Amino acid sequence: MDLTSLLQPGGKIVLVVADGLGGMADAQHATELEEADTPNLDRLAAEGTTGLVTPVAAGITPGSGPGHLALFGYDPLEYELGRGVLSAVGLEFDLRSGDVAARGNLATLDEHGVVTDRRAGRIPDEEALPLIERLREQVQLDDAEVFFASEAAHRVLLVLRGDGLDPRVSDTDPGEEGRQPAAAEPLHPDAARTAQLVAEADAQIRAALAGERANILLLRGFDTLHELPSVTDRYGLRAATVAIYPMYRGVARLLGMDALEQPHSLDEQVATMRKHWDDYDFFFLHHKKTDEAGHDGDRQGKIDAIEGLDAALPQVRDLAPDVLIVSGDHASPTQLHGHSWHPVPTLMWGPRVGRDDSDRFGERWCLHGALGHRPTRELMPLALAAAGRLRKYGA
Amino acid sequence: MDLTSLLQPGGKIVLVVADGLGGMADAQHATELEEADTPNLDRLAAEGTTGLVTPVAAGITPGSGPGHLALFGYDPLEYELGRGVLSAVGLEFDLRSGDVAARGNLATLDEHGVVTDRRAGRIPDEEALPLIERLREQVQLDDAEVFFASEAAHRVLLVLRGDGLDPRVSDTDPGEEGRQPAAAEPLHPDAARTAQLVAEADAQIRAALAGERANILLLRGFDTLHELPSVTDRYGLRAATVAIYPMYRGVARLLGMDALEQPHSLDEQVATMRKHWDDYDFFFLHHKKTDEAGHDGDRQGKIDAIEGLDAALPQVRDLAPDVLIVSGDHASPTQLHGHSWHPVPTLMWGPRVGRDDSDRFGERWCLHGALGHRPTRELMPLALAAAGRLRKYGA
Repeated sequence: MDLTSLLQPGGKIVLVVADGLGGMADAQHATELEEADTPNLDRLAAEGTTGLVTPVAAGITPGSGPGHLALFGYDPLEYELGRGVLSAVGLEFDLRSGDVAARGNLATLDEHGVVTDRRAGRIPDEEALPLIERLREQVQLDDAEVFFASEAAHRVLLVLRGDGLDPRVSDTDPGEEGRQPAAAEPLHPDAARTAQLVAEADAQIRAALAGERANILLLRGFDTLHELPSVTDRYGLRAATVAIYPMYRGVARLLGMDALEQPHSLDEQVATMRKHWDDYDFFFLHHKKTDEAGHDGDRQGKIDAIEGLDAALPQVRDLAPDVLIVSGDHASPTQLHGHSWHPVPTLMWGPRVGRDDSDRFGERWCLHGALGHRPTRELMPLALAAAGRLRKYGA
Repeated sequence: MDLTSLLQPGGKIVLVVADGLGGMADAQHATELEEADTPNLDRLAAEGTTGLVTPVAAGITPGSGPGHLALFGYDPLEYELGRGVLSAVGLEFDLRSGDVAARGNLATLDEHGVVTDRRAGRIPDEEALPLIERLREQVQLDDAEVFFASEAAHRVLLVLRGDGLDPRVSDTDPGEEGRQPAAAEPLHPDAARTAQLVAEADAQIRAALAGERANILLLRGFDTLHELPSVTDRYGLRAATVAIYPMYRGVARLLGMDALEQPHSLDEQVATMRKHWDDYDFFFLHHKKTDEAGHDGDRQGKIDAIEGLDAALPQVRDLAPDVLIVSGDHASPTQLHGHSWHPVPTLMWGPRVGRDDSDRFGERWCLHGALGHRPTRELMPLALAAAGRLRKYGA
């Protein structure tokens, strides 16, 4: 529901996102969080409430975009953060309204025009960066600007800027090797000119890269900046992030948060929050290592990442937020080597949050917590309420 | 949400539906499932997850149609399987697009035109079948075909076939004795001609049955075949049923499943699945006896039916499905002699499903399981996810 008519000034909220926090118990193992030694998270669970949250819908494995939108209280089925836009914000590229962004892969075509390697042998930066520089110099379109930026190795961001662009253009990336690249086709009549510009850029890119092992840029996920209401508009919050990774800083900025000076460690993240404590109502702290270990299938690494976060929590608690949330944008069980649809263990702590009988933080205890099992996007209104920021509804 | 853009090939799913599985604890008794001796279901519960599902909505007692639609992932408030259509599929009547079907009761009118017995003394087949044969011979409409088929005893299926028919016609069945039959009225202007055809058929039926104790056919539930998207369209599944009863085989066929060769016992149901194991991604096994005992108020019979199903489950498990679901289309507590609104105990088992602490299968243990308490229609996306059939949503 729209909360704007109920907003009033109130206390401070800290949202700690352990990326990919959730796990999956199996015959051999408890989840990583259940197994980790987390005295500080356990104490917060004991003094607050716990539960399990579902970021998008039953059975749906969220990408980072939808997972974070849900944590900030946005229904990820209503609001979108597409691949090209996430790439752009991840590079701190100044994407503007009307720009069309796409993810490109430097790839290898054989003499028959068939894709033999979608990543050009995972071409290293020292080889890729000069090629990207060459594209910047040589690819020139009529009536539109074109930008290229490296996202590391074979990954390239392409952005078109001009009047009347439309992102409804089909991928040129065939998605698998052994096939020819596809033509960029308009998926809507309004996108005909944009498709033509993409085709023209594609031809120039092939000419510029001819003879290289990376002799094509396969494009996918054409996208434009969707207008997202800011957390200030929706919740009346002055909000800031102390995320380390550009993508999460970028997502926060898209939602109207300030990205505070770049921290390089969990300690610096907390120190940056402390420094700016009086200037904001809402802080978003993003912890990446849990998800990285999940992707790598590194069980001990994920446990270590959780314990690392646990060790930092007393400092967060010492800031005395009115509401402290610890959750994740999705599960990343190490058995599955990546994101999954399993629910995410969550705790909420603060003087007006309430308490339940759970005194450990982990999936099997969260199952019986007072937050229950609910959509992730309900955390934000609960936090606003517990921070005293929502007036009574109706007389 | 629409899953079609996320579908990918994956593993096999088996859905075991114990019809009317749910029960109701009271001062005297645990539920039938709690009381039954079910070592195999308990083992699946211990190794997988459990929960309670609600087929339609809080407080709603589902018929078999909505209960099954929900199990197959269709919102039963959005999709309909009306009475006439269920009757037709139950009789394996070849109902076609545009046909209008209704349930008829052979009934008794007195000399004042008042219904004195809505079931004509539960007229036996040997008396009813010749009357139905007489209706087939004598009732003739201009511009439309009319079909009659026995559904046993006083129950008759009536089907109209022709151009431009519309099922929005009011019942002629007054619903209780001591009243006159109602006129068939159009409930929408487009149904005027259909209502006229029904009135004409009614007059001819009365003429044909004059002097019999069953001297009228009371009609209700006019309905047409709603186009239902198939499970293949929605989920990319090659699906089949090993149901025994025609109605469940018919419902499965309406959703694009193949009805495999007719089994006559639980053992034959499993054997048929085994035989066709490689040809399908999804199998629907329907177990009827639990519901029959519920209707009869036969507590021990329902316990026996549950234990019978339990004994067959090791064979199902030996097929090594990627996901095995055991649930019901609704509750049928023996105390209530029929369907009820109570939630349905459910288990989901498989290598990617996860685990919880529940180690028995029954309502009181399912209450604490990791599936939580959720709408029945969420089981299908969860099963697709655990079978590896859903790609990540968003970047």
